[in-house]
Amino acid sequence: MALMQLTIIPLGTETASVGEYVADIQQALEKANAHFQLNDMGTLIEGEAHELLNLVASLYELPFQRGARRVVTQIVMDDRRDKHVGIGDKIDAVRKRMKPQKASEL
Amino acid sequence: MALMQLTIIPLGTETASVGEYVADIQQALEKANAHFQLNDMGTLIEGEAHELLNLVASLYELPFQRGARRVVTQIVMDDRRDKHVGIGDKIDAVRKRMKPQKASEL
Amino acid sequence: MALMQLTIIPLGTETASVGEYVADIQQALEKANAHFQLNDMGTLIEGEAHELLNLVASLYELPFQRGARRVVTQIVMDDRRDKHVGIGDKIDAVRKRMKPQKASEL
Amino acid sequence: MALMQLTIIPLGTETASVGEYVADIQQALEKANAHFQLNDMGTLIEGEAHELLNLVASLYELPFQRGARRVVTQIVMDDRRDKHVGIGDKIDAVRKRMKPQKASEL
Repeated sequence: MALMQLTIIPLGTETASVGEYVADIQQALEKANAHFQLNDMGTLIEGEAHELLNLVASLYELPFQRGARRVVTQIVMDDRRDKHVGIGDKIDAVRKRMKPQKASEL
Repeated sequence: MALMQLTIIPLGTETASVGEYVADIQQALEKANAHFQLNDMGTLIEGEAHELLNLVASLYELPFQRGARRVVTQIVMDDRRDKHVGIGDKIDAVRKRMKPQKASEL
Repeated sequence: MALMQLTIIPLGTETASVGEYVADIQQALEKANAHFQLNDMGTLIEGEAHELLNLVASLYELPFQRGARRVVTQIVMDDRRDKHVGIGDKIDAVRKRMKPQKASEL
Repeated sequence: MALMQLTIIPLGTETASVGEYVADIQQALEKANAHFQLNDMGTLIEGEAHELLNLVASLYELPFQRGARRVVTQIVMDDRRDKHVGIGDKIDAVRKRMKPQKASEL
């Protein structure tokens, strides 16, 4: 099971805003029934690695279809085979480790 | 105003888990009264770029102090001078762009 | 035409070295007759975007086959539709822009 | 000793080219007598981590001074405390691991 962060950066666009490009990605992910979460730096998507790579391939042309002439696409895949990782799991793992120390601060 | 995503990856550690290392970073950010948000791929921090770079310098040694011999530290800074960007602003910008299309699907 | 940088980071391995994992990738790229160049932070590969994404899919399992239980795989794709980009082109573009300023320093 | 890869991506610029922005960085690194190497995806710089972070702080404003309103700056720091890492070292480490297998192909 893997978590992927997908970030797209269109270059040479009229404004410095990329919201429209990111909205295209979100809508495609909704249609694909993907399990995803938008954050301020990209979109987290959960799944098996080969499914996630196929998903990237299917989304890849969207920013060019909206008119971008150059796009930097960044993918970070965090894939564990020793345990399940899903959206929110790593945050939980960190919080568990913080509680004892917080308690000891009392 | 800038948004920074900070990700630390310790290598050659006994287990494949990095939660303890990330918890150190969270606790240091709390003590520094930083405006931050943990996600599954890293920590988002909001501030002026020079403040954020100073913050990175102050956090940088933490994973080594916990015993890591090799650490890959990744920083992505998204800095706009034409408008304010804070945690959550980009998500809002994307959602605004999605609403009209969603309505038209009805 | 696109340029891709591929970086693999295995976690929880016995040593902090990743050379063996990267060597697997290089050998697979040679066999695939890919146009690639290793640098200290990853491997640059040149091609059409869909070919490069297929290549990633075919390489993706290699670090797990060598025994890694967790791997962070990073892909940066820089894809231009307004002009050709190949390995070395961007370096040339920067050098051209540096020459006049250097001459004026005389 | 650490290796840092620095990548700058200006957004909302008139053309999709970033060569001028990268040339500014190269010239500043030359003046600073840094040990660096340009590749097609960014600039590799070698040094102690705190020196490299200071260098980033000193270069950080350059793209904005050239007129960019929004810049995505990416830093990847690979820092080992168990052995020396410099520009070219990791490439050598991979090549050493490839030789025996290549010989066996004969």
